[in-house]
Amino acid sequence: MAMASVRIRQAEEGDCGNILKLIRELAEYEKLADQVKISEEALRADGFGENPFYCCLVAELLPAPGEPQGQGIGSKIIKKVAEVALERGCSQLRLTVLDWNKGAVDLYKALGARDLTEAEGWHSFRFEEEAMRELAGK
Amino acid sequence: MAMASVRIRQAEEGDCGNILKLIRELAEYEKLADQVKISEEALRADGFGENPFYCCLVAELLPAPGEPQGQGIGSKIIKKVAEVALERGCSQLRLTVLDWNKGAVDLYKALGARDLTEAEGWHSFRFEEEAMRELAGK
Repeated sequence: MAMASVRIRQAEEGDCGNILKLIRELAEYEKLADQVKISEEALRADGFGENPFYCCLVAELLPAPGEPQGQGIGSKIIKKVAEVALERGCSQLRLTVLDWNKGAVDLYKALGARDLTEAEGWHSFRFEEEAMRELAGK
Repeated sequence: MAMASVRIRQAEEGDCGNILKLIRELAEYEKLADQVKISEEALRADGFGENPFYCCLVAELLPAPGEPQGQGIGSKIIKKVAEVALERGCSQLRLTVLDWNKGAVDLYKALGARDLTEAEGWHSFRFEEEAMRELAGK
């Protein structure tokens, strides 16, 4: 059976509309769609300005007929992220994942990640914009 | 009673030796001293090069005689971080904290943060350098 062909490349500014669509689809799956407040304009400004806040890889998939879509893309993109991170001098790669998202948890563990919340007790805290404004007195 | 005088300012490259000392002291308190692998040289390069990976505030304390040291510095520095983050267009401020570090957990909650691990089930995962090299085939 023919394999789907996956190409992983650096994102370009013109990808931001599709990136936002994927962010929304992920958030819906996570039952957190109400937390997506970013706009396409902000994604463009934050990732493709002079001092970018993020960088992004995209996977382009050309499925072969009869081939189940999505097979192996997650691990291919994580491998590429590890490669880019090492090139840039990073010594760790961190992710956060919902505990009930068993597919993602199992994938990350199979690829060699450790669950630091389980192993060491790390909890993730968030101040939202309103709390930040209160802290800053604004 | 006189209050201790605290000045919060942007870190400079010459602070990196003291910043590393504070990183080590925190890691010892967290019983994770073996995880501190960063050098002063890397701190200098990462924070004060052309496209910095981090920015850093330092609190300078001039304690008044008889004044207990450390009072309120944590919340002062978080307020300043919120202010700087809002100026730069951030819409959230995230922290990770060990679940047994009750002093820090209580402080962040009192200042308005939510424990996302508790509330939504977020777990923090880490690939270490060896796992990254294996992923990248290097």
